[in-house]
Amino acid sequence: MQPPEAFPAQTPAVAQIFTTVLSHGPLTRSEVAERTALSAAAVTKAVRPLIEAGYLVEDADDAARRALGRPANPVRVDGGRALFIGVKATGNELIGVLTDLCCRIRVARHLPLTDQDPRAVLAAISDLVGELRTEAEGLGVPVLGLGLAVSGDVDRARGVVRYSPFLGWSEVPLAELAGMTCGLPVTVENDVRALTVAEQWFGAGVGLSDFALVTVGAGIGCGLVVHGQVVAGAHGVAGEIGHVAIDPAGPKCRCGNRGCVEAIAADAAVLDRIRETTGADVADTAQAIDLARRGEPGAREAYAAAGEAIGRGIATVANLFGPQRVIISGEGLAAYDLFAEQIRDSFTAYAFGSAAQCDVQTRPLPFEEWARGAAATAIQSFIRSD
Amino acid sequence: MQPPEAFPAQTPAVAQIFTTVLSHGPLTRSEVAERTALSAAAVTKAVRPLIEAGYLVEDADDAARRALGRPANPVRVDGGRALFIGVKATGNELIGVLTDLCCRIRVARHLPLTDQDPRAVLAAISDLVGELRTEAEGLGVPVLGLGLAVSGDVDRARGVVRYSPFLGWSEVPLAELAGMTCGLPVTVENDVRALTVAEQWFGAGVGLSDFALVTVGAGIGCGLVVHGQVVAGAHGVAGEIGHVAIDPAGPKCRCGNRGCVEAIAADAAVLDRIRETTGADVADTAQAIDLARRGEPGAREAYAAAGEAIGRGIATVANLFGPQRVIISGEGLAAYDLFAEQIRDSFTAYAFGSAAQCDVQTRPLPFEEWARGAAATAIQSFIRSD
Ligand SMILES: [Zn+2]
Ligand SMILES: [Zn+2]
Repeated sequence: MQPPEAFPAQTPAVAQIFTTVLSHGPLTRSEVAERTALSAAAVTKAVRPLIEAGYLVEDADDAARRALGRPANPVRVDGGRALFIGVKATGNELIGVLTDLCCRIRVARHLPLTDQDPRAVLAAISDLVGELRTEAEGLGVPVLGLGLAVSGDVDRARGVVRYSPFLGWSEVPLAELAGMTCGLPVTVENDVRALTVAEQWFGAGVGLSDFALVTVGAGIGCGLVVHGQVVAGAHGVAGEIGHVAIDPAGPKCRCGNRGCVEAIAADAAVLDRIRETTGADVADTAQAIDLARRGEPGAREAYAAAGEAIGRGIATVANLFGPQRVIISGEGLAAYDLFAEQIRDSFTAYAFGSAAQCDVQTRPLPFEEWARGAAATAIQSFIRSD
Repeated sequence: MQPPEAFPAQTPAVAQIFTTVLSHGPLTRSEVAERTALSAAAVTKAVRPLIEAGYLVEDADDAARRALGRPANPVRVDGGRALFIGVKATGNELIGVLTDLCCRIRVARHLPLTDQDPRAVLAAISDLVGELRTEAEGLGVPVLGLGLAVSGDVDRARGVVRYSPFLGWSEVPLAELAGMTCGLPVTVENDVRALTVAEQWFGAGVGLSDFALVTVGAGIGCGLVVHGQVVAGAHGVAGEIGHVAIDPAGPKCRCGNRGCVEAIAADAAVLDRIRETTGADVADTAQAIDLARRGEPGAREAYAAAGEAIGRGIATVANLFGPQRVIISGEGLAAYDLFAEQIRDSFTAYAFGSAAQCDVQTRPLPFEEWARGAAATAIQSFIRSD
């Protein structure tokens, strides 16, 4: 098997220039220079090989201008130049996407996972990647990287899943194993951080040096970007908004404490609370939402408490980091009408002083977005050659 | 009046090289190159004018080596080359220090503050700076910058105190006013962030890209360094560990909520609690500490609750951004024997997973350190010419 082609970025400056066009393009060379604080000459020099290799394109009439020494037309990334695969592994399913270089989803595939043993998951990843590569062959575009996102404590630099409670894994060298199986450069990242990278490069975080992405659903997670970089945590733990403990008299959390945000606001916690207060035999979140929408007070109250807890968690993040924006997403947004007001009210009440000016917005991201996040990390690794 | 001399750093690289020697020196040029990831040639080129201007020195026998083309001896900062003044303003006192370029305190002075009107405070600052400059003249070394540290919401870039509850100030253009009065380049910074800069450059944060400084005493504050930079907050608020709300049934806080860390653990909160539970007429913190040390259960319990709250606040910081180290300091450490165990126990209980590996250490910093922090920001501004 031939090694996949590498990105023609010999220096961090070239990677920075390309990333700027990727997130903000189309941009003229002087706009790129302004945004990157690099010289116009450096930008022009960096852009040339990227155009030659087909990663950047410029408008046709620009050739004439360039002949006149005035390369003033915008350049943009040719999304169709390369493809990437992103896979998110949950406890019972793999979600895979094939994206272009601009992280637009071309194909999405789901695969049930019956066995969580690393070998079984690896075999399933291999099947899924194979399917998506067949799709890529049909498009006639090379696949240049694979991103894998799992929940838990992930060491991206080493490519190791240190601990994933949902999968029951510890110290699995996933990047190495998947690399051998699939023959692609592999990036392994925590799922919330992967989604945060996608938002930073391609979503609601573009152009922001400091923002937080809060995901609500089965768990309550948080990705933080501070000074333009995703926070990974010195010991592999960061963004654990789910375990911000807000009430010593609150329900027991899986971490051993009481009153964590997750113990009040995660899907299972809301279900438990509804069952407890209403006595109703609620099977799943869809039924719980339905019950609350039909006005059952116990169900409404459980969602209100969830919203209050999430708002307090977000206020804590805002009080500590002062982000420009907080983006709320995740499958839990399905119930958004049931707790939006409580999130906002408790955020406002608990935000300290001008931290309340933080722009809190919701952004419904379909479940494939988690896999797209994984693809975004693969694109990031490809560009940075790390 | 002549403008004070400027630092000969034309580029960010030169500033970075000097800062590296300042924090880690003495270092050989190749050690500097390794630490800064700059080329040996760039380091050698940057070092020369810094030696010529007297900011860096090398050992005498190095001249011979250099003649042989082997500048292998360490260079270090000549602390005595320049002096800086740092002033911390509290509600009732100014604390001023004269430090050398290595931020070592040469002289410290206190001045009572009876009037908190900006004009009165400015006049007092001017007196204090005048006194310290007289000392500097005695030493025959120029004073090259003034740092002012106040609590509250400070916009360092604009030099404006946006809001300081202790001083009762809002929108005071302190840098401009003090600059006109004192004829020195002025840096204004939030006091906790200033102390964090001192720790980052000269203290327990040297060499760390991610750490937190937690100050306990009249308030509970927190300075955060993430990815090597102090977090300022997009809206001027950051590090508000004092208003992490941990108990909805807790005591009322000045921010309007209940159960904030500060409402349980700040000096006044502990005093209130002791008065309430023991009925004793405790006048100040010294008496409260004395009472607790003599075994009065109500007093001991108040300190234990304070420690528990501080530990939970620190765990929240660790769970959200995963620092390498947390440094606990502040005048509240006077009572450290009364709550150290509780801080440690509650941090361990509330730290999520491997966040518990974070190195939590205490560092008693005398009150002059707050003024030294202000001097550190002046040194930082001088070197970076910002
Ligand atoms: Zn928990
Ligand atoms: Zn408060």
